[in-house]
This record gives sequence, C-alpha cells and structure tokens, in this order.
Amino acid sequence: MKRTRRFGGWGFTDTKVLPPPAALSLLESTLGKGEALPEASPELFRLPKPQKLPRLSGEVKTDGLARLSYCCGQSFPDLLSLRTASWRRFPDAVAFPVSHEEVLALVQRASEQGVVLVPRGGGTSVVGGVSVPEDPRPVVVVSLERLSGLKSLDGRSGLATFGAGTPGPEVEGALSANGFRLGHEPQSFELSTIGGWAATRSAGHRSTGVGKIEDLVAGVEVALPSGTWRLGPLPASAAGPELRKILCGSEGRLGILTSVTVRVQPQSVQEQGLAVLFPSWEEGFEFCRKLLREEPFPEVLRLSDAAETEFGRHLVTAGWAATVVRDFLFSIRRFSRACLLLVGASGKAGKLVSSWGREARRLGGLPLGSGVYRRWLQERFKHPYLRDAFLSSGFGVDTFETAAPWSQLPRLKEAVRAGLERAAATLSIPILLLCHLSHAYPDGASLYFTFFWPLRREEALFQWQGLKRASLEAILQAGGTVSHHHGVGRMHAAYLEREIGPQGLQALKALAHALDPAGILNPGVLFPAEQA
Amino acid sequence: MKRTRRFGGWGFTDTKVLPPPAALSLLESTLGKGEALPEASPELFRLPKPQKLPRLSGEVKTDGLARLSYCCGQSFPDLLSLRTASWRRFPDAVAFPVSHEEVLALVQRASEQGVVLVPRGGGTSVVGGVSVPEDPRPVVVVSLERLSGLKSLDGRSGLATFGAGTPGPEVEGALSANGFRLGHEPQSFELSTIGGWAATRSAGHRSTGVGKIEDLVAGVEVALPSGTWRLGPLPASAAGPELRKILCGSEGRLGILTSVTVRVQPQSVQEQGLAVLFPSWEEGFEFCRKLLREEPFPEVLRLSDAAETEFGRHLVTAGWAATVVRDFLFSIRRFSRACLLLVGASGKAGKLVSSWGREARRLGGLPLGSGVYRRWLQERFKHPYLRDAFLSSGFGVDTFETAAPWSQLPRLKEAVRAGLERAAATLSIPILLLCHLSHAYPDGASLYFTFFWPLRREEALFQWQGLKRASLEAILQAGGTVSHHHGVGRMHAAYLEREIGPQGLQALKALAHALDPAGILNPGVLFPAEQA
Repeated sequence: MKRTRRFGGWGFTDTKVLPPPAALSLLESTLGKGEALPEASPELFRLPKPQKLPRLSGEVKTDGLARLSYCCGQSFPDLLSLRTASWRRFPDAVAFPVSHEEVLALVQRASEQGVVLVPRGGGTSVVGGVSVPEDPRPVVVVSLERLSGLKSLDGRSGLATFGAGTPGPEVEGALSANGFRLGHEPQSFELSTIGGWAATRSAGHRSTGVGKIEDLVAGVEVALPSGTWRLGPLPASAAGPELRKILCGSEGRLGILTSVTVRVQPQSVQEQGLAVLFPSWEEGFEFCRKLLREEPFPEVLRLSDAAETEFGRHLVTAGWAATVVRDFLFSIRRFSRACLLLVGASGKAGKLVSSWGREARRLGGLPLGSGVYRRWLQERFKHPYLRDAFLSSGFGVDTFETAAPWSQLPRLKEAVRAGLERAAATLSIPILLLCHLSHAYPDGASLYFTFFWPLRREEALFQWQGLKRASLEAILQAGGTVSHHHGVGRMHAAYLEREIGPQGLQALKALAHALDPAGILNPGVLFPAEQA
Repeated sequence: MKRTRRFGGWGFTDTKVLPPPAALSLLESTLGKGEALPEASPELFRLPKPQKLPRLSGEVKTDGLARLSYCCGQSFPDLLSLRTASWRRFPDAVAFPVSHEEVLALVQRASEQGVVLVPRGGGTSVVGGVSVPEDPRPVVVVSLERLSGLKSLDGRSGLATFGAGTPGPEVEGALSANGFRLGHEPQSFELSTIGGWAATRSAGHRSTGVGKIEDLVAGVEVALPSGTWRLGPLPASAAGPELRKILCGSEGRLGILTSVTVRVQPQSVQEQGLAVLFPSWEEGFEFCRKLLREEPFPEVLRLSDAAETEFGRHLVTAGWAATVVRDFLFSIRRFSRACLLLVGASGKAGKLVSSWGREARRLGGLPLGSGVYRRWLQERFKHPYLRDAFLSSGFGVDTFETAAPWSQLPRLKEAVRAGLERAAATLSIPILLLCHLSHAYPDGASLYFTFFWPLRREEALFQWQGLKRASLEAILQAGGTVSHHHGVGRMHAAYLEREIGPQGLQALKALAHALDPAGILNPGVLFPAEQA
C-alpha cells in the first residue's frame, strides 16, 4: 500500500518520531523557551485560481491539494511558510508523466508555450530546489514519481538503469533481488529519488566508500526542448569534457533527467561497524585524515564534535544500565569533551574495521564496540522527523554542510562557529551549534553543521536569515564550498558566483541558454532567474 | 643540461631505439615489404613569411626553426607530413610566457586583436591537438614549457600545485623530494606536461589504481579573455555542475590552463608486479573483470591479446636461455595463442599481487614471476621511439584507444578487427592488428589497438585515412568512445557529435562561445572551427 506523505513536514503520516524529554531539557537549558510553530494544515490555505495552461499530455492535476502538496520542499523557510500558512507561490498544475516520451512532450510543449517547469523527485530539497519560483508565466511541477523502477541491468558490467523517479528503497530493493547494491544512502533515502540524487550531486552515509552519486552515474537520459539527449554508460573517456558531470548538479536547469544508469556492486553481507570515543575533536580528526591515506576506505566515517556527541547522548534512550555506564564514561575528565566516531565498512574493507579500531585506540580513542554503530544504522532515517518535533516545541533548527581540504578544515570550523555566534549575538538569541565530519576523501572532508535557536514566531524567518547568511559568509571566506551535498537550489543561488567566479557563472548561463533557450526549466536554481 | 627534442619524431635526439631484427622479420613476413619514409629534415622546408602580429608581451620567437619545431604534434599525419616536407601550416610566432600573468596578457591581447592561439605542453598529441590549424588569422603557438615546477604543496591534504608546463619527470621529482607521488605515467611521461594531461583527460599506466588525470585534478587556474578563472581545490562539492571537470578535456578551447592542483599520495616503495600467461584472451579478460570487483585495485593491469603477445615476444631481446624457455612455452599447444597479462601495485595493494597471481593460476593462467613485469616497467617509455624506426623501415603504424562497459567489449573488439580488415581489403593491403586491455574500471575497460601496414609512400595518407576511418566507424557503431585518453584534437573533431549527441555539441559550443567570444583559443579541436 502506498504510504501518504506528511503535509508541511518530513516523511510519511504513519511515522512520527519524538525527541526524548532529556533532549528537550538540554535544549531548554541551553536556549531557554521558544515559541512553538503550529502544525501545517492544508485547510488554512486559500489558493489563487490557477493560470490557464495549454493542453499538456499525460495526467495533469489542477486541484488545490495537489497544487499545495507540490508547492515546495523541506527547507526551513518552506516549512515555516507552510506551518504559518504564509506560502504564496503555487504551481498552476502538477504533471505526472509515466514515460520519457511524456516528459519530452511536456518539455517541448512548455518551451513553445512559455510554461515554467519545476522537475521534482522526492521533494526533499532543503535548499529550495523544488520550491515554486516567482514567475509571471504559468508554472507546472513535473513529478517524476511514476518514472520508477529498474529498467535494465547489465550484470557483467555492474550497470543498472533506473527511471529517474525511483526512490531509495525501491532502488536497493530491485538491486538486491539481483545480487547487487548501489550503497547510496542519503538521510532522505526513504523519500528521495535516483534522479534527484544525480541532479543535486547527493552524497550518502556510505559515500566515503562508495563515492558520491556523481561518481556512480555512468549514463543519463535527458528530456530537452530540442529532443532527447542520451549519454550512454562509459567507464571513462577522453572525448572532450565529461558532459555526464555537467548534468550531475544541474538541478533541473539543464534538462529533465528521465533515467539514470548507475554503477552498482555485488551485494555485500559482511558489514562491520564500530563506535569509538575520542577525548578530543583533534584526535578524532587526525584519525580520520590518516585513515583516508590508503584504500580501501571505510564506507561510513562520521566524527561528531563534543557538542554533537553530548546532544546525541541526550537523544538516545537506553536501558538504565547502559545509561549509568555512559554517564560514568562522560563524567571521567578525559572524556568530558568526548567526540564520537562511527566507522563501518563491508566486503573486504569490512575485515579491516577491527584493525581500524586498534589504530583508533593507539591514537587515544576508546573503542565502544558495534552496538552504538548498529543502533545509528537502524535509526538514521528517522532523524529528519525530529526536526518537525523541535519546531513544534519552540526550537528553530536547520543544517548546512560544506567541504574543504584537510588543512583548511580547522579554520573553517572555527570560522563557522565564530560567524554564527556573532550573528546570534546580533539577533540577541543563544544558539546551539553541532558539527560532524563525514564524507571524507584523501584530500579533505565535509563538515555538517546543525544549529538550534529559540523561535520567536513573528521573527522566525528573520532569525533564520541572519544565521544562514552568517554561515554562508563564514564558509565562503574560509574557502569552503557553499554545499557538499544539499545542492544550490534557490537558497544558495545568489552565493554561487563567489565560489565559481564570474566565468563559472557565465559558463552555467551559457549552458542553460543553449539547452533551454526559453528559460522554462526550473528558473532560479543555480543562479537567480533575473540574471539569465 | 636541457636535452634537445627530435624534429619530426619522438623524444630526444640523444635517444634512439631500434626494433630487433626479429620484430622486423615478423612484420615483413606478415605484411611484405613497404616503402620506407625518409627522415624529417628541417632544411627541406621553405616557410612562408609570417603574418604581421600585434605586439605581444614576453618572449616571442618568429625564426624559422621555432615556427617549424612547434607547428604540429606526433600524430601519423603530422609525422608523415614532416618526413615528406609537405606540412604547410606554420605558426606566425611561438610565445614562451613565464607566468600566469604573461599568459593572461597574451590571451587578452590575442582576443582583442583576432590572433589565434594554440596552447602547447609537451607537444605529444597524437590526435592533432597542437597542430596549427588552417585559419586566415595570424596564429601563435603558446608554449607553456616555462610555466614549470612545483608551486605549492599542502602535505596535510595531499595537494600539490604545479605550473601547467611541468613535464612528468619534473612532477614526480619534485613530489618525491617531499615524500609524495602522483603516479600519473602516460607513455608520453618523459615529454608531456601536467597541463596537457588535464586538458586532454590523459590516463597513465597506473590509472587503474590511481585514477585518470580528471580524478586527480582538484583545482585549476585558467587564463581567459575575461580574466583569470581560478577554481581552488575542493575534495567534493554540490555547488552546481563540477566546472573543474569541464576544463578537463577542454583541450585549450575553453581557456589556457596555467596551473593545476593535483591530489597526491604518500610515496610508496613496495611496488610488486607480476606477469601471467593466459591460454586465451577470454580467460585473461574474465580475470581482469573480476579483479575490478573489489578495492583495492591494481595500479597496472594490462592484458595483451595473442597477436600483441606474439609481437611483443619478437620485440624483446633476451638471453639465449630465456629465449629457449620462452619459445618452448609458446610451442606448447595450450599456449600457442597465449595472452600476456601484466599486473602491478604498490602500498597495501602491493601485498595483494601474489594472491592475484594465485587467483590467475586458478583461472587457467601461468604466473611467470616478476621479471617480465619489471622489464616492461623499465622499457615502457622507449616504446614510442620504435614508431619512428618502423616508419623508416617501410611500415606504417598507428594506435587508437576506446573504452566501453565490460559486456560490450567483446563485440567492440571484434567490430574493430572486422572493420579494419574490410578497410585493408579495400585498400588491397595486409594489416597486423594488436590489442591490449588496460585502464580497467569496475564497469568496463579501455581497449588499445596498434595497427601496422606496408607503406606506399605516395598513398601513405590515403592508406592511413582509410584505416583510421574504419576504426572510428567500428568504435562508434559498437558503442565505444572515440577516445579513452588520447583526446579529440582535430582528428576526432568531426566524429564527436555522434558520441555526445547534438545537444552535447551545442553545450560545448555554448561554453566555447561564452568563454572565448572571439574564437581564438585552439579553434578546430573538439569540434570543427567552421561550425563555431
């Protein structure tokens, strides 16, 4: 049975995840009391009449609930606007094409008629990638959910082709039935789709080992106003610049991906994992950096800083015995600022996990065994649900991520902390900032930040804007990227030029203009639409 | 002391490599006698007066020898035209900038004044990438040889920045002095440059393990008419499409690379290598395919087909005892069509080499120990010199390479063989076709072909064109790429659209036009200039 997505929140209506009282107490003792946001309620919206649309092929819905359900993604401003019933930009219709040919017909008709298309996979963008833009033209959201499933499998080459709208569980389900796996497991895994992953350069929990999605994409099929663009799978080439890489990260602006061919590997059953407690961030950081010097890499490598470790400790409910042991451990002076590392791998690399544990001990870490790791594995897709609960408890929360070379990461982490604290002081609010290192590479790693603040309902957007702006400024000044795996969307579009330079922006605009002369494909993502 | 490059042939004047008589006998018995090409001689050329140039900054040479020495690369038509003194397109000058700023000034002045620039690294292109194009405008070759050396090293991140004109030995020399290595070793290693590698998406003998150059490039600096484009090193990002990847394979058409930051690894001393004889191509092929299922990969993996193994056997001079053993081996019926595999690795993976040998034995192979491998390692950079000797002995010879998924490679290899044999029959000449698999990936591999034919001096270009065209047709029809690591250059430019589609071509043209509006940067590579 098809599960129902929650309106104005994460995931499915059949699942609700509440933080334990200890976590809320910790937030309240750090941040004070905030003003809870109301739950989102479709009844509170009065939608404007849809603009008249040309006849479009395939199923197209224009009812209010469809227009409301597909109007935006899961960013903080998206959720805030939905919960306060202040969202104003609705699609005039939602299209549900069932084939590449139907998408192509839609794209071509829309280009001729000046209809804006917003392609949408799982709708989980946290950077405004699927939020309906302000545009005087009619806007149609193109949901790719019916372009789903395994289309072909080349077992000898380890290549699998999926419809772009295939969500994570269906991807792995179809592969596992054939003895393969992709191993791409972003936190949005249960909702997001393979096409969305490719379009946004997604990373998953196992990316340190299996690679980011752009490393896994071997071929693509794209619908464009000029027709079908098919780039078949190739292991490598020197036939000019790699155009498959241009489509990864194109966020729907350079065409609508309708199918994706990915590199898959034989299924692996020997997953091993371990948690290690390091007395300090610096010791854990060095362990991670050194681990990436030689292959095989771990699949999962995730080092929480002291604040995140402490917060996580309050998030996990455990039996009283485990709690006593845990609390005793953190009470030891040496571990009072402890940082938790999770490391895991499968296949041949899985056999190395225990030796990594020994190496961690040599570098000052305390291996905690596999229980904490396994628990995290089981719980990880539930964590995004917590955000809704925090918003309903008066705490604002958002996340952002960046990446930089190893040598720059300490400065970058410090710059973000300082920048956010300055912004919070300006706003006269306290904040709680958590950070983990994940997605490590031989030459650097990603830092993932979570920040909480006490909500003032009338000022919530203003509060968020101040904090968000400070984080981007700090990242760009410290040489980080505006995003490691969330993408650019509309939220980071105005900042991209500072990272890629005026020539980079010029290159992207030239590509968009060449492939989509009418400018109908997801305008506003990557770079502001008015600059096009 | 600076060594002198050979005019109209490979490498340095202080080195000459002659094939052993056995190899020439084998060619003669297979192909009959051909007409030897004369050696190239600068005295035979009468250069047209150079066009008048605007004043350009930095050292600029306009003498005949410079214009002659920098007029083309090392493709078969290049060498043929030089040896027969029929080359007609000479630069009006050769510029030798010493800094990014000088390159930038050159590019900006040339763009204003309508002067065509042909950027040049080691000048080893075998696909016309550095051959002076037909163009009514003045043409200046921009030699990057003085932008050489290590500019900075970030040891903690394993990132090294080099001037674009740094040749292979200097790259590894500077890194090794600091305890690092890049491991990028194309056959042109002694001559080609890090900027040239990046611009052409080069691969090296160790690419199966260390990756192609586009995997190793973390950052670039580019000179453009609009100014400097700098993309600093990042381990990964989701900030839109990866523009560093657009510059890899741009072949000078999207800007002149002036420095390149690459991912380097700690130096490794434990290199292990092994040669294995497989009774058939199919058995060796399966061994390679399976080896790439799990990391760590070997660095070197190179499987010669029976014809190449047989030819190689005649190419290597060995002591009489070794020769007796070898000949005995090949006389055994089971090894009469034997295929030689070379496999090698260093670091942790080096420890796996002996277990790979055992696995090869289990799959029907006969491990021959490390001697043959070590010999190949020592001799490999001399092999390109042999081409000159073959041309001087009456045998035409050229190479090309492609890549495809594992499942398509058998059909592709057969299509190339059939296509070339048909073309040879049409030309009424015999050919000898050798092939090896190298640069393997989990999802496929590269096939590298060498073909010999008996030269008719007056028809040599016509003969080559017939064979070359047949190889490209076969590759494209069988789903291979027009090049795995030689690049597109001017030679494959007319074929690229069939691989990347009209939209791919449109995308490249849009990029070129946006970044180089005057169309002065290496026109004719990637796509024909008249289409721009």
